[in-house]
Amino acid sequence: MNEFDFIRQLRELTHSRRRSSRIIKGIGDDATLIREHVDRDLVVTTDLLVEGTDFHREVTPAHLLGHKALAVSLSDIAAMGARPRWSMVSLGLPKETWTTGFKESFFEGYFPLADSYGVELVGGDISESKEIIIDSIIIGEVSSGSAILRSTAQDGDQIYVTGKLGGAAAGLKLIEMGARLNQEAGGSRPEAGTEPLAGATGLHYDEETNEAETINRLLRRQLQTQPRVGWGIVMGEEQLATSMIDISDGLSSDLQHLCEESHVGATISAEFIPMDEDVRTICGRRALDPLSLALHGGEDFELLFTVRSENVPRLPKRVDGIQISRIGEIKAEAGLWLHENDRIWQLRPQGFTHFATQS
Amino acid sequence: MNEFDFIRQLRELTHSRRRSSRIIKGIGDDATLIREHVDRDLVVTTDLLVEGTDFHREVTPAHLLGHKALAVSLSDIAAMGARPRWSMVSLGLPKETWTTGFKESFFEGYFPLADSYGVELVGGDISESKEIIIDSIIIGEVSSGSAILRSTAQDGDQIYVTGKLGGAAAGLKLIEMGARLNQEAGGSRPEAGTEPLAGATGLHYDEETNEAETINRLLRRQLQTQPRVGWGIVMGEEQLATSMIDISDGLSSDLQHLCEESHVGATISAEFIPMDEDVRTICGRRALDPLSLALHGGEDFELLFTVRSENVPRLPKRVDGIQISRIGEIKAEAGLWLHENDRIWQLRPQGFTHFATQS
Repeated sequence: MNEFDFIRQLRELTHSRRRSSRIIKGIGDDATLIREHVDRDLVVTTDLLVEGTDFHREVTPAHLLGHKALAVSLSDIAAMGARPRWSMVSLGLPKETWTTGFKESFFEGYFPLADSYGVELVGGDISESKEIIIDSIIIGEVSSGSAILRSTAQDGDQIYVTGKLGGAAAGLKLIEMGARLNQEAGGSRPEAGTEPLAGATGLHYDEETNEAETINRLLRRQLQTQPRVGWGIVMGEEQLATSMIDISDGLSSDLQHLCEESHVGATISAEFIPMDEDVRTICGRRALDPLSLALHGGEDFELLFTVRSENVPRLPKRVDGIQISRIGEIKAEAGLWLHENDRIWQLRPQGFTHFATQS
Repeated sequence: MNEFDFIRQLRELTHSRRRSSRIIKGIGDDATLIREHVDRDLVVTTDLLVEGTDFHREVTPAHLLGHKALAVSLSDIAAMGARPRWSMVSLGLPKETWTTGFKESFFEGYFPLADSYGVELVGGDISESKEIIIDSIIIGEVSSGSAILRSTAQDGDQIYVTGKLGGAAAGLKLIEMGARLNQEAGGSRPEAGTEPLAGATGLHYDEETNEAETINRLLRRQLQTQPRVGWGIVMGEEQLATSMIDISDGLSSDLQHLCEESHVGATISAEFIPMDEDVRTICGRRALDPLSLALHGGEDFELLFTVRSENVPRLPKRVDGIQISRIGEIKAEAGLWLHENDRIWQLRPQGFTHFATQS
């Protein structure tokens, strides 16, 4: 049993005891949807980030961790088509981090991102722990009935993603090889002299080209997540998407989550998947497969959504400078299919799963 | 700096960037209070419980941990005078607990308590961690303007507490001495043959008396917290309390929190403090001071509230079988004072603080 199976079990337990008609969507979507009053629904999400599992202290500067903890929850709110309003943070900190400025730096990264979307920190909790632990909670709002669920995609809908894919996963690979973000103002080259993580083979980059800058951009894709808050709000307001999810586990996994919840299937085309240009650049010399990173690599935090064909002309070309790409179509029959050149492959989700090796 | 200083710092940071008039109370109370619409406010709380800091796996059965994680958050909602509605849980689990039935037992304790107050589990998150981590979130509701804050006690108000104090702290002491809860149906004696925690002196109890049953009841006070949800709802509905807080850190600490937030002081009388009878019984033979446990021991999760003198006759005698006791009076001048026999002592808060030894 992995965590998805367990969450399914819990969900059935909660369904069997459901009493309130005000829960529009409980367990099983990017966030919980609660009918608050006649013209407004609440959207609530919580994301637990644990050191060693979800991030590594030695490669993630504290202020970027503050940024990321909020960003992943903003992405969940965006995936519901909602507007983020209020946030809370529960922090578990090892004693030795209490006096090192970690928590101050954490909030130096947290507040600017919160401010940029008008999100107010309104509560939280603190305890002592062995590793750094962050539980990030956001409450958002959406006009009644305007939230966009995972479970409402329909046969024939066109499948879209925002932005470019594979960058965050490539950044993680580079970190595993020893690359470290250069954070200096205007710094665009990775920091020199850092050690690869245990088991990594070491990172060498071509001094002759701009590869160092490329690497630093990919490190930022992993460490400085940009949630698609603007796209989320627009999709909620304009009611153009039939379903939506954010790509946190990986395109293949999250498309499967959406299709399972909607009881449909999908075909997507490799040539339409918007690959991060930097990923292509960096992969060639390192025997990495850009398509594999774009399909299965997690943490891009782009939005994946479906649109009825007749609504496609009404889609905005870009929001906050971010474009979208059509990658495929929803099919009535279950199953995910990938068109690549003249072949069709069955697409098997290979995104991130905690406890995946447990039976 | 301890965590209270840091929370104060954060609170000032959030105040300096406050924009929304819908936050009635952000950081600095038992829970956050948000104006949701004209006749209803939202109350949100989050409590982080970390193994080794907030509980010990070897002495806390998983189902009681599930019960307690929800109970501490229910207590926060009660302390606002609100009605709990929806809950979320973020769980960090070590890999080895994934297949031992821990999470199933956890929810076997969680759901019955949730059901008993009509609280619905509507979301959460799961990750992998070194120790067991639980972040417990509850959203409650209260009629607009009816929430009871910490910050509104006034000179001359009478100070009340629900139930009896010191039991949870005595239970913790007994656990540290090696006592373990007997969970069998009808089991009222602690389990035999268990080892004291590191550094403990071992527990011996008198076979001739009913001391074993007394010990087991005190273990339950620590391990099977009963939040005062009914009292909280009544106080919110009847608008009888001028201020309220739950006793989680200890009477002395939480009275200080309430007084600091209200910019007042207080005097309380030792003879009026409702001592758990079992605490008196057990303390004599073990050189423990019952008054000290009742004053400074945490986790009783009783409610501490203040009432204008003219409203005292309108107070219910009991709610859900739980009585209240008047323990003292609010004073205009800052400072906490304890009357004991003919003496007056300055009462220094000695409740629980994380990171207390750090400067």
